[in-house]
Amino acid sequence: MKRPLILVTNDDGVVAPGIRVLVEIAAELGDVVVVAPDSPQSGQGHAITIHDPLRLKKVNLFPPEIEAWECSGTPVDCVKLAKHVVLKDRTIDLCVSGINHGSNASINILYSGTLSAAMEASLEDIRSIGFSLDDFSFDADFNPGKPWVRALIRYALERPFETGNLLNVNIPKLPADKIKGLRICRQADARWVEKFVEGRDPSGQPYYWLTGEFVNNDNADDTDVWALQNGFISVVPSMHDLTNYKAMQGLKTLENAQMAG
Amino acid sequence: MKRPLILVTNDDGVVAPGIRVLVEIAAELGDVVVVAPDSPQSGQGHAITIHDPLRLKKVNLFPPEIEAWECSGTPVDCVKLAKHVVLKDRTIDLCVSGINHGSNASINILYSGTLSAAMEASLEDIRSIGFSLDDFSFDADFNPGKPWVRALIRYALERPFETGNLLNVNIPKLPADKIKGLRICRQADARWVEKFVEGRDPSGQPYYWLTGEFVNNDNADDTDVWALQNGFISVVPSMHDLTNYKAMQGLKTLENAQMAG
Repeated sequence: MKRPLILVTNDDGVVAPGIRVLVEIAAELGDVVVVAPDSPQSGQGHAITIHDPLRLKKVNLFPPEIEAWECSGTPVDCVKLAKHVVLKDRTIDLCVSGINHGSNASINILYSGTLSAAMEASLEDIRSIGFSLDDFSFDADFNPGKPWVRALIRYALERPFETGNLLNVNIPKLPADKIKGLRICRQADARWVEKFVEGRDPSGQPYYWLTGEFVNNDNADDTDVWALQNGFISVVPSMHDLTNYKAMQGLKTLENAQMAG
Repeated sequence: MKRPLILVTNDDGVVAPGIRVLVEIAAELGDVVVVAPDSPQSGQGHAITIHDPLRLKKVNLFPPEIEAWECSGTPVDCVKLAKHVVLKDRTIDLCVSGINHGSNASINILYSGTLSAAMEASLEDIRSIGFSLDDFSFDADFNPGKPWVRALIRYALERPFETGNLLNVNIPKLPADKIKGLRICRQADARWVEKFVEGRDPSGQPYYWLTGEFVNNDNADDTDVWALQNGFISVVPSMHDLTNYKAMQGLKTLENAQMAG
């Protein structure tokens, strides 16, 4: 039987420990091709490179049966290059992105290169999953989440999702025996409360460095943030249609007023 | 009566003709502060600058009553710096972003720095509108759209939107007497079909340069792409909740299966 083709990418860069774990699990379930950034791309969101050429370089960072490329662009660039250059004559059965070092729950889906890469794949009608561990450290322990990552990849390969084709999966920072299971959630309506650290550079010019605190005032028990805080792996089916359908009717007055004016 | 405070930004950079038009119109209706990128940032999506300090520099590019700053970061960085540094003790009544040189209809809302800046403002509970003209050229004619931009800004200042607080507005490339009015739309399910131009740099190394064609197979008459093609200004109320609610029920089986396993 033909093994499925799985594209693996991330935003922490091709040398990050998190992608090694994801490649290891994906390779148990299919043929893996890696196209990932050659440098950390956290916070790149859905950025693409328009004004510069992109580079692709084959790398030997994984077991020899894994074809792997590093790319000079953003995570979204990686997915575009994977589909249209690296794998242009092949069908990608699944794209997995991560495992990100740090949570991408709630609105972090907008800022995250890891999730934007997964969304880009879903825009190309490739089923995709973004995986993140709620631990920013370089030496984060990805082991407790492994069986769940494996189960989710297997699920995605075995059957089409009911509707849509993108999952945002976040894993709590817990030992294996403390992870209670999976929860299908909605995106929490949390936000970052920013602060800028202000300073002076060696030549005396002012600079501003972004920092901030993640604040969740959305206390319902059906959100991804709730799931993580209560020992569950959060799974949010996500999509690229940003239309606020509920707001359309109320704005119709604007349409009529302007049409008359 | 106190005049409203309007933040103006864009992604084409503080010297782009489109932002001059937006500043001119906004200044008729409120006090304007500009915080915009010091270089073109098209395609930056929701990227933020985490690993580098940001710079702010006061510029004299507009009439003397307009406070204006150029910022070294992305459009989203500009909004964060505007709120937390430049205007930290003041209430921003409205953020307007653009006028973008080129359409941001359909999924371009994901890639667009202009719309991501507007979305960032909406995340901060600031009502916001992203404006784009369906003409990529530097010397695009923004005049036909001016009365509509003015009307939309006035509308946003005078009353709260029914639900949500972000509008994605696209203006067709038409003479004034051919613009038929406004249409409240949903985001068309269109996409980019990418191609990469492959070449060799002067040292013989391969490169890949992104290009592509915008393709719309969503032919219903309630989309932003339909509106633009039929002489209307499209207005899509947009939001940052990317949860695919319709997909949640179908995935519940996954939750149960895993909980048992």
